[in-house]
Amino acid sequence: MNNSEAHNEYMEFLETLIEKAGEISLKYFRSDLTVTDKNTAGDKFDPVTRADKEVEAFIRERISEKYPDHAIVGEEFGAKRNEGSHTWLIDPIDGTRGFISGSPMWGVLTGLKEAEECLVGALRQPYVKETYVGNGKTAYFIQAGKRARMKVRRRESLSDAIVCCTHPSMYPTEESREKFMRVISKCQFSRFGTECLGYGMLASGYVDLVVEGGLSAYDIMPLIPIVEGAGGIVTDWQGNTAINGGFIIAAGNKKLHDEVMELLN
Amino acid sequence: MNNSEAHNEYMEFLETLIEKAGEISLKYFRSDLTVTDKNTAGDKFDPVTRADKEVEAFIRERISEKYPDHAIVGEEFGAKRNEGSHTWLIDPIDGTRGFISGSPMWGVLTGLKEAEECLVGALRQPYVKETYVGNGKTAYFIQAGKRARMKVRRRESLSDAIVCCTHPSMYPTEESREKFMRVISKCQFSRFGTECLGYGMLASGYVDLVVEGGLSAYDIMPLIPIVEGAGGIVTDWQGNTAINGGFIIAAGNKKLHDEVMELLN
Repeated sequence: MNNSEAHNEYMEFLETLIEKAGEISLKYFRSDLTVTDKNTAGDKFDPVTRADKEVEAFIRERISEKYPDHAIVGEEFGAKRNEGSHTWLIDPIDGTRGFISGSPMWGVLTGLKEAEECLVGALRQPYVKETYVGNGKTAYFIQAGKRARMKVRRRESLSDAIVCCTHPSMYPTEESREKFMRVISKCQFSRFGTECLGYGMLASGYVDLVVEGGLSAYDIMPLIPIVEGAGGIVTDWQGNTAINGGFIIAAGNKKLHDEVMELLN
Repeated sequence: MNNSEAHNEYMEFLETLIEKAGEISLKYFRSDLTVTDKNTAGDKFDPVTRADKEVEAFIRERISEKYPDHAIVGEEFGAKRNEGSHTWLIDPIDGTRGFISGSPMWGVLTGLKEAEECLVGALRQPYVKETYVGNGKTAYFIQAGKRARMKVRRRESLSDAIVCCTHPSMYPTEESREKFMRVISKCQFSRFGTECLGYGMLASGYVDLVVEGGLSAYDIMPLIPIVEGAGGIVTDWQGNTAINGGFIIAAGNKKLHDEVMELLN
């Protein structure tokens, strides 16, 4: 099996897996949830739901069955083995706060990396029945059995660009917030509350930028092969790999990406 | 026909009308739109789409056929007659920026008022096929032909409350922004990017507050009978009627509403 066949096998496996995982999350969406606080320090609200745990357990089980030698890192249950050559990353419900609020702005994320290379990633929004999947070379939007190739759009000037971000509080210091405000003040307009779907909107060519901070590896790694597969770029604020999370710039093209980097540094 | 029968007739008419209007908007959602700038001063981006115009034209036509004596005020085509005893308000696409960005956070709004009293209002999100409709006494959530009574939830402390707002830039002055930040700093958490759907999430009992600024009458009037029909309260920041727009507090109960009013004044 060559690399490209392996990528396609992984994509196929992931598409089916994440659609089924999404169905589990829907059982809990807009129902009475017991939200617990997993941050024991108590200084920050950090909601965990049964949905989170059940979705992640399902995904881990299916991956372990199919790829018993692969490592798995998830938001809820930590790591299975030390990181091997192949590692799956899972964010069972990205956008838990969107989920709790009854909004459709959340999704199930799963991705696979080999050492520092992203192989495949998928995002499923089960309420609106959307799947975004990519392998860094191609990316697809799948809905109701229909599959469409995704492609970023070509807007090269910040003044024509729409920028997304989940929440202004992602910028914990005054300095990082000011830098971010400098970017959005130069854009056509900004959208907040986008969660993982902001990256789907970027890959689909509806928006041009996602600029965020404080992400974990499982928040962003599954989205990289989607955005890059659609022709976009994802790095940290310094232009290095975003695979481990942190402060992220995702852009539709290099010119926009460079402009944002310059404003942030 | 007594008042209550009239309300029900209006609700029924509105449910069918807004569902059909939503189908028109969907033809343009996630398609290539020509976005024009209707703000001639050019200092603010104010997108108008063909979808906006076509949806409003459809709604106006149907209202004129059924209630030829009623007045109509819409975002795109202004007023039909001077305001009579019965006036329909239309925001063909509330959340145009959400719409343009390919996000599902937008909706079609239509409401009917008699002098200063809101009679009925409806919100349709056609992509996720949700209708929220109310007459100030009852409110329903309708999806795939299923109808469920909506009811706000009972959280009386700000520290347990989720607050929604469309965008931080809704607070044009430093003073109003600071007041708003005072409110959200006391809440469990805040969600941005909610547009009209924030009021639907409030009526459904998923969130507790929507605090916004700079709304037009057609942005808010159709939502008042929905929130109030589910047991909530909608006023301006001074506690007066919100029917003409402006700075708005929508809350699940009076205790929360009073707490927010105190923080804002």
